[in-house]
Amino acid sequence: MARSLGRLLKGFRSLISPPAMRTQLSYPTACVSVRTMVALPSLFSSKPRDFSLPNSSWGSEMMRLYEHYNSQCEVETEGGETQRGPWQRLPSYNRSLKYATGGVYLSKVIQSKARLFTRNIRESGAAFEYVLFVNKEEQRCVCIFQAGHLLEGPPGHVHGGAIATMIDTVTGTHATILSGPVMTANLNVNYRSPIPLGSTVLIESTLDTQEGRKIFISCKVTSNNGSKLHTEATALFLSINVSHLLGGG
Amino acid sequence: MARSLGRLLKGFRSLISPPAMRTQLSYPTACVSVRTMVALPSLFSSKPRDFSLPNSSWGSEMMRLYEHYNSQCEVETEGGETQRGPWQRLPSYNRSLKYATGGVYLSKVIQSKARLFTRNIRESGAAFEYVLFVNKEEQRCVCIFQAGHLLEGPPGHVHGGAIATMIDTVTGTHATILSGPVMTANLNVNYRSPIPLGSTVLIESTLDTQEGRKIFISCKVTSNNGSKLHTEATALFLSINVSHLLGGG
Repeated sequence: MARSLGRLLKGFRSLISPPAMRTQLSYPTACVSVRTMVALPSLFSSKPRDFSLPNSSWGSEMMRLYEHYNSQCEVETEGGETQRGPWQRLPSYNRSLKYATGGVYLSKVIQSKARLFTRNIRESGAAFEYVLFVNKEEQRCVCIFQAGHLLEGPPGHVHGGAIATMIDTVTGTHATILSGPVMTANLNVNYRSPIPLGSTVLIESTLDTQEGRKIFISCKVTSNNGSKLHTEATALFLSINVSHLLGGG
Repeated sequence: MARSLGRLLKGFRSLISPPAMRTQLSYPTACVSVRTMVALPSLFSSKPRDFSLPNSSWGSEMMRLYEHYNSQCEVETEGGETQRGPWQRLPSYNRSLKYATGGVYLSKVIQSKARLFTRNIRESGAAFEYVLFVNKEEQRCVCIFQAGHLLEGPPGHVHGGAIATMIDTVTGTHATILSGPVMTANLNVNYRSPIPLGSTVLIESTLDTQEGRKIFISCKVTSNNGSKLHTEATALFLSINVSHLLGGG
């Protein structure tokens, strides 16, 4: 455990840009540092695609909900100026070898080809289409998720594992926003009603409590108008202390 | 809930071949009936690929464990005859439109392209490579799982959602063997130590108890020699009564 955790930390270390960690202590997440990197203009490197932006596969419900939250990311003041709104859109997490040298003991082939599970199918709309918004004041995350035809479990419906995957993704991102790199320790998922393939659902997470390194988060998956409960879950994350890996001082 | 369950049942109905249900009551699973169909020789239909058979992407550990269990599927008697052994290999579940007309309310496009989540990437070795064996006498299932490079969560390691997906798959298959079509009601997963990408692990499920429609199953994910515990889980399934859909009598 200790050895594998050490290897994992090496991976996280390379995912976190130390300057961002030091200057943005209120928001020291892998998410944000990757975001910062993505935002850097460069003539020499290709900018990774942000999968959380609309594409032609997004249906009308996905677009409507996206606009609903996106329009609250910037608000206009009475004086006509724009300022940050209550919600913030999170860009997709783009793992690339450049920023993640974790698992050096893995074969070079595996390492160089590794791709985030939820973004491993390039065909738009075929698998997981999703975008996350965070409301820091209310300690809430909302994810709009459109389930593609390659996520089938029961005939015509989304696989329980695909639902668990999205719950892990949303609650894990939420925990990361709260306290930097985390590991999932527990995921307890109650499936209430099946989710039809092709439908768009809302995944909402709320912080229950934080005790030392432990972060407890609740999560609900509902139909796009919130009227039907598909899934309920609780998640426990352990924050990983990476400060000693960042050179200290 | 009632309506969506009805739609789901329609899907299951088409997955189960009624004659198999009637004559094989001791083993009335979707798995088996699909298997029966797969085994039927036909000059007119292409036989779906059985993904649970070895392919060139399987590493030495995957092959070693496969041979270990596969060799126990048939045993030789003292008289030199072969007979069924304690273990049985389960062929992969191949969903195809022909056998699953569930979700008729879904768009034709989604329905015709739908593919089982764990088999949605065709490149061998890239995602989930796995094979299941069942020991009916001991009420145990064993799955040998080799995690490909497209399942990444934490750098260099398998996504928590991909692990939950495999646990759902193994315990769900186990529950299906016990009592026909089931739905996952609860999945409670404790992540103990991360699983490196590219590694082969064992996923073992055991029946805890069965109470009416409820089936409680436990599951452990360990390193390939069983020495390291990666994940522990419990799962609850509800069996779905499809007898009234099969025409009765």
